[in-house]
Amino acid sequence: MLKGKVLVAQGGGPTAVINQSLVGAVLEARKFPGVTHVYGSLHGISGIVNEDFLDLTQETTANLERVAATPCSALGSTRDKPNIKYCKEIFKILKAHEIGTFFYIGGNDSSDALKILAQMAEKENYDLTGIHIPKTIDNDLPVNDHTPGFPSAARFVASAFAGINQDNMALRGVYVGVVMGRHAGFLTAASAGARTFGGDAPHLIYLPERTFDMNKFVTDVKRVYDKHGRCVVAASEGVHDAKGTAIVTKLAKNVEKDAHGNVQLSGTGALADLLTDAIKSKTGISRVRGDTFGYLQRSFLGCVSDIDQTEARQVGEKAAQFANFSDAKSGTVTIHRVGNYAVEYKLSKLESVAGLTKVMADGFINKDANDVTPRFMDYLTPLLGSNMPQVGRLDSSNRVKKILNA
Amino acid sequence: MLKGKVLVAQGGGPTAVINQSLVGAVLEARKFPGVTHVYGSLHGISGIVNEDFLDLTQETTANLERVAATPCSALGSTRDKPNIKYCKEIFKILKAHEIGTFFYIGGNDSSDALKILAQMAEKENYDLTGIHIPKTIDNDLPVNDHTPGFPSAARFVASAFAGINQDNMALRGVYVGVVMGRHAGFLTAASAGARTFGGDAPHLIYLPERTFDMNKFVTDVKRVYDKHGRCVVAASEGVHDAKGTAIVTKLAKNVEKDAHGNVQLSGTGALADLLTDAIKSKTGISRVRGDTFGYLQRSFLGCVSDIDQTEARQVGEKAAQFANFSDAKSGTVTIHRVGNYAVEYKLSKLESVAGLTKVMADGFINKDANDVTPRFMDYLTPLLGSNMPQVGRLDSSNRVKKILNA
Repeated sequence: MLKGKVLVAQGGGPTAVINQSLVGAVLEARKFPGVTHVYGSLHGISGIVNEDFLDLTQETTANLERVAATPCSALGSTRDKPNIKYCKEIFKILKAHEIGTFFYIGGNDSSDALKILAQMAEKENYDLTGIHIPKTIDNDLPVNDHTPGFPSAARFVASAFAGINQDNMALRGVYVGVVMGRHAGFLTAASAGARTFGGDAPHLIYLPERTFDMNKFVTDVKRVYDKHGRCVVAASEGVHDAKGTAIVTKLAKNVEKDAHGNVQLSGTGALADLLTDAIKSKTGISRVRGDTFGYLQRSFLGCVSDIDQTEARQVGEKAAQFANFSDAKSGTVTIHRVGNYAVEYKLSKLESVAGLTKVMADGFINKDANDVTPRFMDYLTPLLGSNMPQVGRLDSSNRVKKILNA
Repeated sequence: MLKGKVLVAQGGGPTAVINQSLVGAVLEARKFPGVTHVYGSLHGISGIVNEDFLDLTQETTANLERVAATPCSALGSTRDKPNIKYCKEIFKILKAHEIGTFFYIGGNDSSDALKILAQMAEKENYDLTGIHIPKTIDNDLPVNDHTPGFPSAARFVASAFAGINQDNMALRGVYVGVVMGRHAGFLTAASAGARTFGGDAPHLIYLPERTFDMNKFVTDVKRVYDKHGRCVVAASEGVHDAKGTAIVTKLAKNVEKDAHGNVQLSGTGALADLLTDAIKSKTGISRVRGDTFGYLQRSFLGCVSDIDQTEARQVGEKAAQFANFSDAKSGTVTIHRVGNYAVEYKLSKLESVAGLTKVMADGFINKDANDVTPRFMDYLTPLLGSNMPQVGRLDSSNRVKKILNA
């Protein structure tokens, strides 16, 4: 039963809809008569240790709704990964404030932290209900059909490549866009989401699920360029060689790692520059440009999938409902696709997602390892949401007869 | 009088609304009874030389409207800068097709090309009406209050920094976003467009109108970081030292130049990487990230200012009207702000814009050369268009009293 004090926190990288989940959990929790307070921890679990709580029970609904529509964790986030000592600190605070329910909105690192806390609560015989609310633009949580945050980021990437396609048609040459996604290629694959006409970009898509071979890459680009007079490439920041070494780290002097031991891939234009340099030097094509989409793809104000907004809100609401109605003391809210297109929500075991990574199914990647399949497009299309802008093209059949060059 | 065959072309870098101008000119020109054909030249003036024309008189209105809403030159673009020989080739083709009116949609390079053509037409006694239709995301055309394409790109940049602000509040550290704009800082300055709360990012803005000093830059960043625990920087790709040398070229091995002699600044993440490296090494701040916004800011599908859409359409329409009703054989359509907020259009002399560059007024830049002024915000705000997404923030005054750390 949901009662007393409830705590909510947000962890990991921001998404466009992570505050929908926050507000969903807060407003729904407050509907249960036994709930006296809903606290928000600032900057994830680090805010618990520091006792940095906001009383969200004293927020107006109008302000919460405005926060819900704002990208990136309104409570702040953290990359902290708690060890035993850290968790003991957390428990001290939870006990002092008599907090019996903890909702942690985050990705696989955050669910892993929650798993450790849940195990420790059981061992310490502390009555804690801990529910993980999923979010990640990487879309790499197992069990879930997809993860809140991914559809909006996918819409951003699809819209970006639809625009880049027009730009590249106008000025030609080669363009390489580097997309976020360390191990899972879903977001890079979403670059195909707004292809409309035959020959539309991206012409080549490189995913971290497949080994990246620089020579094959250059050959692919050359072939497309020779055929179309232009070439647009979508490459995951996580592309790696046969040994699993990220291509970008091969040139970097100082490799930066986060608390989870992950090498920093975002926040630098090194990979795009490396790939465009390779094309320039090996093909002789003169106009070669590269962009690294960077933080815009997870935070851009105003590019949101309405499907994603709704679902992110619902997983937050379901967390409060599961906390009240389920017998389980812990779990993760998971999204399951039913029909075409609808979803249902379940409370799954934390162990089924915590610290685990889902990657793209083989059936989503073409056999040349440089594009997605129609099956992936069936999976992706409904997630992008309604009212995707449409592109038009002039009718190229209305050619004027040449007179002097006839 | 507008009659016979009319030719339209698009030059220079794409914008989100350049096809509004194209369609405005085409549909308006077709309303004049003497006009028999409206041709579109593929890839700017290079399409004239190659006689690559589409007959836009055979386009449906519905398709033209769909093209109008599509970013980037639908006819294709070019960076070609014509010399005397090139212009003679152009005239041969214009004569052969009996084309008496030429609308060229583009920036200062394109207006310069049109100026050369207009002068040559007069010298050769060829009856040509040549009207330049303005566009450029750089907003650097003299005479004009602003230039179609800039407002939508500004909306993109403002929306990007509004999201980055949220991201940086959530995960802290330092962020550097590099924005397009070689000589004019308008687009970089637009990063301030969606600041809402006190302390909102960007905290520092570096424009090409002022000399960039690396030591001052690092000191600025450190000061902001020490005060707010975070810092977001908007830097123009064109920032340069006291001698005018672009900062990015100081590290680049191979400097690439276009047909106009411009050094390539976009399409590489080198400047953002250079700036973040400087901050890391000189301040010891650990989380420092940089993005180069790149081609997304001029092509992104679905981020458009409605003011920009309307005005871009109107400058196209006005070109056709001026060609019919004005006595002048050539000119450029210019935008003039009247009241708050409305505009009127004039036909100005090509010489007043051709090859010239407007930069930000001194009154738009603060005296520390690291931010914009309220006067610039008054200038910018109406251009961003209606329905800018709003951001919300949780009420930080509802702090829960600490118990253990009291």
